[in-house]
Amino acid sequence: NAVKPGKSGRMTQTSFTLHASDGRARTGVISTPRGDIRTPAFMPVGTAATVKAMLPESVRETGADILLGNTYHLMLRPTAERIDRLGGLHVFMNWQRPILTDSGGFQVMSLASLRKLTEQGVSFKSHIDGSKHMLSPERSMEIQRLLGSDIVMCFDECPALPADRDRIAESMELSMRWAARSKAAFGDRPGHMLFGIQQGGLEQDLRQHSAEALREIGFDGYAIGGLAVGEGQEAMFGCLDFAPGQLPEDRPRYLMGVGKPDDIVGAVARGVDMMDCVLPSRSGRTGQVFTRLGQLNIKNARHQDDPRPLDESCGCPTCRNYSRAYLHHVFRSQEIISSMLLTWHNLHYYQELMDGMRTAIAKGGFAQWASEFHAQRAQGDIDPL
Amino acid sequence: NAVKPGKSGRMTQTSFTLHASDGRARTGVISTPRGDIRTPAFMPVGTAATVKAMLPESVRETGADILLGNTYHLMLRPTAERIDRLGGLHVFMNWQRPILTDSGGFQVMSLASLRKLTEQGVSFKSHIDGSKHMLSPERSMEIQRLLGSDIVMCFDECPALPADRDRIAESMELSMRWAARSKAAFGDRPGHMLFGIQQGGLEQDLRQHSAEALREIGFDGYAIGGLAVGEGQEAMFGCLDFAPGQLPEDRPRYLMGVGKPDDIVGAVARGVDMMDCVLPSRSGRTGQVFTRLGQLNIKNARHQDDPRPLDESCGCPTCRNYSRAYLHHVFRSQEIISSMLLTWHNLHYYQELMDGMRTAIAKGGFAQWASEFHAQRAQGDIDPL
Ligand SMILES: [Zn+2]
Ligand SMILES: [Zn+2]
Repeated sequence: NAVKPGKSGRMTQTSFTLHASDGRARTGVISTPRGDIRTPAFMPVGTAATVKAMLPESVRETGADILLGNTYHLMLRPTAERIDRLGGLHVFMNWQRPILTDSGGFQVMSLASLRKLTEQGVSFKSHIDGSKHMLSPERSMEIQRLLGSDIVMCFDECPALPADRDRIAESMELSMRWAARSKAAFGDRPGHMLFGIQQGGLEQDLRQHSAEALREIGFDGYAIGGLAVGEGQEAMFGCLDFAPGQLPEDRPRYLMGVGKPDDIVGAVARGVDMMDCVLPSRSGRTGQVFTRLGQLNIKNARHQDDPRPLDESCGCPTCRNYSRAYLHHVFRSQEIISSMLLTWHNLHYYQELMDGMRTAIAKGGFAQWASEFHAQRAQGDIDPL
Repeated sequence: NAVKPGKSGRMTQTSFTLHASDGRARTGVISTPRGDIRTPAFMPVGTAATVKAMLPESVRETGADILLGNTYHLMLRPTAERIDRLGGLHVFMNWQRPILTDSGGFQVMSLASLRKLTEQGVSFKSHIDGSKHMLSPERSMEIQRLLGSDIVMCFDECPALPADRDRIAESMELSMRWAARSKAAFGDRPGHMLFGIQQGGLEQDLRQHSAEALREIGFDGYAIGGLAVGEGQEAMFGCLDFAPGQLPEDRPRYLMGVGKPDDIVGAVARGVDMMDCVLPSRSGRTGQVFTRLGQLNIKNARHQDDPRPLDESCGCPTCRNYSRAYLHHVFRSQEIISSMLLTWHNLHYYQELMDGMRTAIAKGGFAQWASEFHAQRAQGDIDPL
């Protein structure tokens, strides 16, 4: 194992400590040998061993405690075996703090071609070069071990919504059998965590059944899978009104692939501890900017003479050093610095959002914080000059 | 004027002090109110108010004392008037140290369409949106003043080589008349420098005539124009064997648009004090890497399992934190971080090169330094694993 030990030996245990709760919202800390993860936590996505347009030290400066890496992308390029030989994903991408990897299950179904799903797993062709591959619970656990992931996700399957109840139930049952195989293949790895993934679509009884199956197997954390796949916020919140409560109180709950700022606030209000999404980084590259007051598109001509920062109250380097006029100019000129600066701001905004929620929950003021959040966001943007 | 004054008032004078010379190579300092420029100096190019793929603080970390901005690009987008309203180019792009701007003359001839050259100046259509514009000595001085440039270049014209002697002589004479108009239009601007540009192709007598015309007008520095336009290194060095000596000893000499590392070393050996080139940054985006031992292409498959840095002896963040294998992976994956990291390394390499020359000249050891430089560069790269 090529991971460098810490200076004074390393802690080999992980833990989750809840510090406070406020309504159903909770705040705490996941401790790992590579560092603490303050919850509620937002994980920036580093698909191909990079959070696009950001240096890892800049990602850390935004306040991120943990990154997400994508098993599907990394197994294809540069391959898990190569990353292992090079010392693991942390060394490879120069991020020494915790990394969570997904199982590849979701992305293989959305990106790969010629997919064939069996009880054993999924065979498919790479979207990059057409090469043939297979993913199964066992292979996914092996890849995530080779990557050196700190938080490993069970290999699962999830249908796009809407889907009929039978399809959702069958898929969930398959995912529960795969969860058991994932746990067996993961084995005993002190310092690393394995998370199960609840499925069952929007159906309360299927979700309950899934939660019970996962509890029986026993995991270090529990993800809520199969949401944010096209069902809309209202349906998602409807499901989150019951799903987190079906999972163990004393383990972190992770809502996968969410989301917009108000999705995140609504999820935390319903008891979610962790989330990830490409939205802040992807939006940074397309000129969409999240601020305390809402959302703006930097391409809009009304910014071209505006000497003000994106958000007066934001402490990120973009807002401290650059005007909207400059950001408009470099976006229109298709300069790389546009993606760098807008992504930095968006990730900073997301981490500030999480920090605001953690502080509010700790003080018992989450409801008021959330109401101020919604009131501010409803403004949309500062007035034009 | 929106430029912020220094904390304790600002120096309003500029100067050039030669500290040492070694053969024809020289080292010194150009002092400006915005900071010192150690010579020989390499100026990274920030065409559209950004050194592509770099934050300005990172450009400074590579050791750059001064950037170059392109009048042609900036006058078209976002426009000089807009930059002026926003506080000038330094504030706009968050670079508080010296900026040299070219006159627009060279780029209007290479990039714009429907160019019409008269005694008055050049009318043309924008390559971005087809809009009509005019550049003349007077307009170029106005634009460079609006940008807030610290070192302003005369508006000149230069034919592509090869060209016949009559064309070169006519063009040079026109440039000398424009140099006089540039000086008159520049006026008296304490704290800012105006550089004349010597023309005359590869002809020693025309260059001599041009140098005398410029000396008569009187400038703060003198550029050697009309080289690095396709004539090849041998012809360029042949010209540099006499051209710098035709210019005043006590003023900085700036060779425009040069070049590859060995071009730069050869130019410094011949008495050049300043250079600029897009090569290190452009190469960073195309995977070409400059090292002490030569040049490499990160796309090459031999790097894909190589845990070594680009250059063991390089102290840049890319070499301190990333393997060739990682850089190969992110280049192949077309990730933005590839351009960021390779550009950073290349700019760092160029600045280390300048620093090595400055130190060697100060010690009287430039010839030995240059011979070691050539011996190392002849290796090409480290041996494959
Ligand atoms: Zn910001
Ligand atoms: Zn380097």
